[in-house]
Amino acid sequence: MFRGSNLLRLADYNQAVVLDLIRREPGLSRADLQRNSGLASQTISNITRRLIDAELIRESTPSDAARGRPSIPLVANGSGAFAVGVHVDPARLTILLLDIAGEVLDQRQLPTPQATNPAEVTTLIAVNTGRLIREAGIDRERVLGLGIAVPGPLDLRTGVVLDPPQLPRWRQVRLRSDLHDATGMPVLLDKDVTASATAELRNSADPDFLFVYLGSGVGASVVTNGQVLRGASNNIGEIGDILVDPTAEDLGWSGRRGGLAAACVPEALAIQAAQAALIPLPDVTDYLAIDDACSALFDLAARGDAEACAILERSARRVAVGIAVLVNFIDVPRVVLGGPTWSRLSGAFLPILQDAVRRELVVSRDEFTVVGSTVGAEIAAQGAAELVLDHFLTPSASALVLD
Amino acid sequence: MFRGSNLLRLADYNQAVVLDLIRREPGLSRADLQRNSGLASQTISNITRRLIDAELIRESTPSDAARGRPSIPLVANGSGAFAVGVHVDPARLTILLLDIAGEVLDQRQLPTPQATNPAEVTTLIAVNTGRLIREAGIDRERVLGLGIAVPGPLDLRTGVVLDPPQLPRWRQVRLRSDLHDATGMPVLLDKDVTASATAELRNSADPDFLFVYLGSGVGASVVTNGQVLRGASNNIGEIGDILVDPTAEDLGWSGRRGGLAAACVPEALAIQAAQAALIPLPDVTDYLAIDDACSALFDLAARGDAEACAILERSARRVAVGIAVLVNFIDVPRVVLGGPTWSRLSGAFLPILQDAVRRELVVSRDEFTVVGSTVGAEIAAQGAAELVLDHFLTPSASALVLD
Repeated sequence: MFRGSNLLRLADYNQAVVLDLIRREPGLSRADLQRNSGLASQTISNITRRLIDAELIRESTPSDAARGRPSIPLVANGSGAFAVGVHVDPARLTILLLDIAGEVLDQRQLPTPQATNPAEVTTLIAVNTGRLIREAGIDRERVLGLGIAVPGPLDLRTGVVLDPPQLPRWRQVRLRSDLHDATGMPVLLDKDVTASATAELRNSADPDFLFVYLGSGVGASVVTNGQVLRGASNNIGEIGDILVDPTAEDLGWSGRRGGLAAACVPEALAIQAAQAALIPLPDVTDYLAIDDACSALFDLAARGDAEACAILERSARRVAVGIAVLVNFIDVPRVVLGGPTWSRLSGAFLPILQDAVRRELVVSRDEFTVVGSTVGAEIAAQGAAELVLDHFLTPSASALVLD
Repeated sequence: MFRGSNLLRLADYNQAVVLDLIRREPGLSRADLQRNSGLASQTISNITRRLIDAELIRESTPSDAARGRPSIPLVANGSGAFAVGVHVDPARLTILLLDIAGEVLDQRQLPTPQATNPAEVTTLIAVNTGRLIREAGIDRERVLGLGIAVPGPLDLRTGVVLDPPQLPRWRQVRLRSDLHDATGMPVLLDKDVTASATAELRNSADPDFLFVYLGSGVGASVVTNGQVLRGASNNIGEIGDILVDPTAEDLGWSGRRGGLAAACVPEALAIQAAQAALIPLPDVTDYLAIDDACSALFDLAARGDAEACAILERSARRVAVGIAVLVNFIDVPRVVLGGPTWSRLSGAFLPILQDAVRRELVVSRDEFTVVGSTVGAEIAAQGAAELVLDHFLTPSASALVLD
């Protein structure tokens, strides 16, 4: 059914090594591949011919600078294989199609159904995945699989979403097998922060950073020496309970008073804005209503409302305390923020965060930076799709896929 | 001058691989080595002969179970090579001698000079290192080097102790080159928490844990997949500022109010005990006086004094909050506590910590455990010596040694 993945599953280790080298450094010549892989010239020649025949790589045009040299740059063939990436944020559902060259072909965002059970979400994902593939006009057989990123905690061994505080109706959901049944595709499940850090790593040259995820919840992941840490149980990044302000107001919610989540997640910001009588209090069990309430708060701030601006500035200062806890502990020179709500917070956060975090650092760092991700709100979905490509196309495939 | 290290520096990569295998799994036969290394039988035979001639390994006696089999177990030769390990805690200076088989031959603890400058500490270390080697009756030429663990922050690139809050008289100290000049030995500098986690990893079978260091300061390190994380600037583990109790009393000290350091370091405990009128307030610029004051507090608690016990129990509950922040973030199934003051805190901490941390965990973990290290108060010194052995005896030697 899935020609691409069958091809790759039958492939030998050396072929995976060569394809991985080309994916990570587009434009390598056969001579480069020989040097970088340590494989024999004839082996490289055979493997690249097979990969070209399978439409997984293609020959590109040598640049002007290379004129006179016989080496032909090889690149991943964007139309050769694809992965679907899905991100279930409690407010927004993102589905996208990523090609083997790392380009997002198409994506759609939907409101995450609030009143429905997980089975309806599964069906919604399956239907929209089918549409996305059909409308993109690509061969379904060339889709390697579907990666889905969700809030934790997860049991990746069994593919089960355990009991995420951010998805109160999801308890022990066998999401991996349910989605496999609904789509017929190999399915890879992972945590939102891990998928996001994977996408960030693939889209930046930096091998060491803390990734802070801002969506309906807040989370973090660590990239060290070019590796995404995932934690012993694949549940890295639960940072919402970190105390950041001992004097914080009582939000009357389930989260920890004075904690990092209370400082910055949309639900907490909406409650704070309502307490300041800026907006009416939304139904806090409805993430779409919370999202709308936050939009009203952001609009007020954008129009220069002093109280709205003060709420966001206070949020930034509290987030800085939490980020400093993580940077002091794990020792990274760089923090990257991203996720579904980042684009709306960045205007208030970026002018404040870097200096505010730096003031809290035990080890003084001139080079310390805080930046926003270059990947957009779809970062977790993109990362989930990258993880699928990695699973099938890298030499050390993990055992996390049901197929 | 250092025959052992010269031998090893001249050694080829394969020899290092074989020696490393034997060090990590004592008792391997030549056939085991062949299997585990992938090297040819004749190569193994040549290398093991060279290592035996150099007195770095020796043949051991086959166990009864192996009778009839011709395979001879090979083990590191304890008398073949050594490393000196030093730990500068602000209150206690530890110097020990570790052999290549991982045994501590001898150790001594001295009060860290309080009123002197770092140069006097360097001299003290050099003199005592010389004595330790002489009294152990070992050949100085077989000492590979000296590893020294100190509180951070450090610049390992230049071997400089920057400005550790715990060593207020140490500013920009070129400790690595100073000690090299004073001893003539190759010197490796590292952080106390990194050295401690290295020793813990070598002495336990567990590849994933958080190590919490308790000395004059508090720190942490992470071991994941059998690797000690050290942070991008080798300064992992600054956790003293993590807020653990928003209602905490004002200690009138330089540390953060309500922070993890204020909850558990000897200086903070002594101030708390003095505020409760249990003991007189010691001179808090004198770590030896602080140490004595804490001893008085621990004695009171051991004799059942209710207020002294309450201070230590409160400390344990606050430490649990801090540990939970780290476990929630980095996702480890196991926490190990150790360091110079651990043996005196363990009685009050161990009955409380595991349950108190577990209650704070976002991901519920039946298997979650909190334990004390099996290595004693000398753990950082032992780890520093292990890092020296690793530097000279493992295939992937780091570039952190000045020699």
